[in-house]
Amino acid sequence: MSKTVDEAVSADSATHAVRTYIENHRTAFLDDLMEWLRIPSVSAQPEHTADVRRSADWLAAALRRTGFPTAEVWETPGAPAVFAEWPSDDPDAPTVLVYGHHDVQPAAREDGWDTEPFEPVVQGNRLRARGAADDKGQVYFHTLGVRAHLAATGRTAPAVHLKMLVEGEEESGSPHFRALVEQQADRLAADTVIVSDTGMWAEDTPTVCTGMRGLAECEIELHGPAQDIHSGSFGGAVPNPATAAARLVAALHDEHARVAVPGFYDGVVELTDRERALFAELPFDERSWLDTARSTATHGEAGYTTLERIWARPTAEVNGIGGGYQGPGSKTIVPSSTTVKLSFRLVAGQDPDHIEKAVRDWAADRVPAGIRCEVRFGAATRPCLTPLDHPALQSVVRAMGRAFGKPVRFTREGGSGPAADLQDVLGAPVLFLGVSVPSDGWHAPNEKIELDLLLKGVETSAHLWGELAGNRYEAH
Amino acid sequence: MSKTVDEAVSADSATHAVRTYIENHRTAFLDDLMEWLRIPSVSAQPEHTADVRRSADWLAAALRRTGFPTAEVWETPGAPAVFAEWPSDDPDAPTVLVYGHHDVQPAAREDGWDTEPFEPVVQGNRLRARGAADDKGQVYFHTLGVRAHLAATGRTAPAVHLKMLVEGEEESGSPHFRALVEQQADRLAADTVIVSDTGMWAEDTPTVCTGMRGLAECEIELHGPAQDIHSGSFGGAVPNPATAAARLVAALHDEHARVAVPGFYDGVVELTDRERALFAELPFDERSWLDTARSTATHGEAGYTTLERIWARPTAEVNGIGGGYQGPGSKTIVPSSTTVKLSFRLVAGQDPDHIEKAVRDWAADRVPAGIRCEVRFGAATRPCLTPLDHPALQSVVRAMGRAFGKPVRFTREGGSGPAADLQDVLGAPVLFLGVSVPSDGWHAPNEKIELDLLLKGVETSAHLWGELAGNRYEAH
Repeated sequence: MSKTVDEAVSADSATHAVRTYIENHRTAFLDDLMEWLRIPSVSAQPEHTADVRRSADWLAAALRRTGFPTAEVWETPGAPAVFAEWPSDDPDAPTVLVYGHHDVQPAAREDGWDTEPFEPVVQGNRLRARGAADDKGQVYFHTLGVRAHLAATGRTAPAVHLKMLVEGEEESGSPHFRALVEQQADRLAADTVIVSDTGMWAEDTPTVCTGMRGLAECEIELHGPAQDIHSGSFGGAVPNPATAAARLVAALHDEHARVAVPGFYDGVVELTDRERALFAELPFDERSWLDTARSTATHGEAGYTTLERIWARPTAEVNGIGGGYQGPGSKTIVPSSTTVKLSFRLVAGQDPDHIEKAVRDWAADRVPAGIRCEVRFGAATRPCLTPLDHPALQSVVRAMGRAFGKPVRFTREGGSGPAADLQDVLGAPVLFLGVSVPSDGWHAPNEKIELDLLLKGVETSAHLWGELAGNRYEAH
Repeated sequence: MSKTVDEAVSADSATHAVRTYIENHRTAFLDDLMEWLRIPSVSAQPEHTADVRRSADWLAAALRRTGFPTAEVWETPGAPAVFAEWPSDDPDAPTVLVYGHHDVQPAAREDGWDTEPFEPVVQGNRLRARGAADDKGQVYFHTLGVRAHLAATGRTAPAVHLKMLVEGEEESGSPHFRALVEQQADRLAADTVIVSDTGMWAEDTPTVCTGMRGLAECEIELHGPAQDIHSGSFGGAVPNPATAAARLVAALHDEHARVAVPGFYDGVVELTDRERALFAELPFDERSWLDTARSTATHGEAGYTTLERIWARPTAEVNGIGGGYQGPGSKTIVPSSTTVKLSFRLVAGQDPDHIEKAVRDWAADRVPAGIRCEVRFGAATRPCLTPLDHPALQSVVRAMGRAFGKPVRFTREGGSGPAADLQDVLGAPVLFLGVSVPSDGWHAPNEKIELDLLLKGVETSAHLWGELAGNRYEAH
C-alpha cells in the first residue's frame, strides 16, 4: 500500500507538531516523573505500604492535571490501583485501556547502586532510578503523549475513549488484580488493551510485542514408604519415590525435546512462515544471548530456533525437585517422598484446564505400584497473542514507526503476566508497547531508562490515539 | 554323613555339661552384664565421651576377670576400642577373632521408653536396656561362653587362639575403625572372624548370616546456568540440570529394574540353586515385611524374590535429590544445579573401584551439552560372603544347632558394615553369629534381648571354639 502525497505531507506535519510540543514540555514532564520516582512504592515491603498509597495518590492527581476528567484510587485487599478515564469527544470512537503499574521492585544503595535508588539522577541520556523503566517511566510517557496528541491535532479530548489502569501490586505477583478486573469489568470495558510494561528489542530496533505466553504451575508429590527407610534393609525391594519422580520428569520430554504429555500440543497456534521470517530478521546473537542466560549451550524443541522456542512454543520446565537426604555426606535411605515443581508455558490455542487434565492423566498412568501421587495445580495465566494483521496492532506499528522513523519489527514475550487477565476478562486484544531496552536493568541495581527512548515513547503515544481511532494522519 | 553312636553320646554329654555350667553361672553373668549396661556409652554424644571410656575400661577388666591373659584399651583419634587375647594351649590351633562394639545408640526416657534406658530391668524373659541386644549382650555372651567351654572340656585355655576386638564408635559410623585394623593387623591376624553384632531370623528359627552387602556411595552434581534463570525468558531454550538429573536417575534402571550402568554386574557371584532353595524355606510373610518397610508394594529386579533382592543382589538407590526451588508455592526458574545422592549395594564379586569407574563413564556419556557433571565417590565398603560349604561356617552351624536343638538356616545381611574391613585387611572369612531377633528394637525405645536367646548365645559360644578347632564333640 503506497501513501498518497497528501497523506505523506499530513503525516510529516503531524510528526513535526508532536515533536515541537514534546520539545517544549520535556523539562516539566521529566521534573514530574522524577518527583514520582522519589516515592519508594515498593509493594513487597510492608514498611513501604504508605509509600505505595502515596504513589497512587500522586498519580491520580497527576492524571487529573494532565486533563483526565476522572482519576480514582481503587482499593484492593492489598495495594491500591489507579483508574483514569478521558472520554473522546467522538461518541463512536473506540475505547482503549492502557495498563501499567506504579509499584516498584525493592532497591537499596548497598545492593550495588551508584546513587540512591529513589533519588533520580540524569546522566547524559540516562535517567537512573528504581522504576525509571519498570514501570513509572513507561506509564508516565502517556501523560505527555496525550497532551501532545491534543496539541498537534487541535482536539480538546482524545481521538479514542482513553482509560488507564495502573496497578500497585505487579511486583508482588498481582494477587488481587484479576478480582479487581472482574469486579470493575464494566468500567474497564475496552476494544483494545495497550500494555505499557515491556520493552523493545534494542535501541536501534523498535519492536512491538504481539503476545505473551501463559503459565500453568504444578507440583507433583510422590509418596513411597511412610517414612525414610534403610536402603540396606529395604532398598531394591520396594519402590523409591525419588526414582519414580525422576522417571516421571525424564518422561516429560521425548528425544526431540518435545513435551511428551499426550494432548499437550492440542490446539497450539503454530507459527506462520511470515512470523518465522520476521523473527529471523531480528539481529540476534546467540553467543550474547547465552551470556545473558548464563548458559553454555542452547537446548530445546527440535525444529525451532531459540527465539521461536522462547516466544512461540509451549514448554515444560522443572523449577525444583527435592526428596530424601540433601545434607552433607551421605545417608543410606530410601526416601519417603519426593516433590517436583513444574511450570508449563502455554501459547495461544492452549487451554490451562486441558493442560491440567492432560498432566494429571499422564502422571497417573506412570506412577508405579506402591507409589502414591498427588498432583496440585495453582492458578493459571492464559496466553495471549494478537495476529500480525490485526488492525490495532497495525496502529501501534504505525505510531511507533512515525516516532522512530524506522521499520518496526515484531517480538513476543516468553514470560507471562497479569495482562492476560485483561484479555481474558475484557475480551479485548492485548498489545504490548514499550520503549525500554534490555540494558535498562529491570529489578537490578542502577535501573535506568534512555531519555531519547522515553521521549520516543511519548511520541508513539501521541500518534497512537489517532491511529487507533482510524484518523491516520490527523494534524492541526 | 551319619554320626557314629560314640559321637552322638559325646555330643550329648558336652551339651549337658555346657548347660549345667551356664545354669550355675547365669545369675552372676547377668549381674555383670547389667552393670555394663548401666554405663551410657553413647559414642555420638560428646557429653558421654567419659562414659564410652568407662565402658571400655569396664570391659577390659571384665575380660581379664574372665581369664583373658591380655585385655587392653586401644586408643583411636575417637573413642577407645578393647582388644583381648587368650592363646590356646595348642600352638597349632586356629586363631579366631570376635568382633563387636561397646558403644550404644542415644536413648532417653522421653523417647518412649517404659523404664530408664540405662537402668536395666528384667521382666519375665526379657532384659530391657539400651545396648541389651546391640551390642553389649551379644559381646558379653562370649565371656560365659568361653568359661563354659573350658569347664565342659576340662581345658585351661580355649581350643582356639581367641581374640576379641570390641570397638567404641560403631554407632557413629566407625570413622577410625579401618585405620585401627590396618595399624594392628599383626595382632589382629586370624583364620576366622566371628561378628557378634547381628541377629537371627526369628525366635524359633536360628540362622547364621553368611554375608553382607558392600556399599559405594556417590554424589552427582549437575550444573546448568551459572545462576537460577527466569523460566519464561530462557526456559525451553537452554538445558535444565534438574531435567538432566532426572534423566540420569531414570536411566539408572532398565524396564526389569536391573541396574543399567554398563559393567555394573561384572563379576557378580550369582545365587546357587541351593541358596535360593534355602532362602525360600525361611518362613517369610511378605505382608508383614511390607509393614516393617512401611511400604505398600514390593518392587525390584525381575526374576528375584524379595529376600534375594535384599540379600544377594546389587542395587542402585537414590538416597536424595535436590535442585532449584523447594519452598512453598512456586518460583518460575530454570535451576542452576541439581544434586543426586546415590548408594550402590554390592555383592560378592563386585569391586567398588570398578563400580566407580563404570558409574563415572555412564554419567559422562549421558550428560547433555551445556550441563557440567561432577561425580564424587566416598569411601566404599566391600561386600563379604562365605560359601555355604566353608568349614568355618559349618562349625558355626553345628555350634548353634547344638545350642538350639533345631536345624540352623541361612540368612544374609542387606546392609553393610565395618566387618567387611576385617575381611579386607585380615584376609579372613567373616561369619555372623547373633541371637537377637527383629523385635529386640535396635536403635529404638525399649531395646531388649530375650534372656533364653541370650543364654543360647552363651551356649553357642561354648561349643564354637571346639568346633572351629576341629574337636567336634569334646567333653570333660
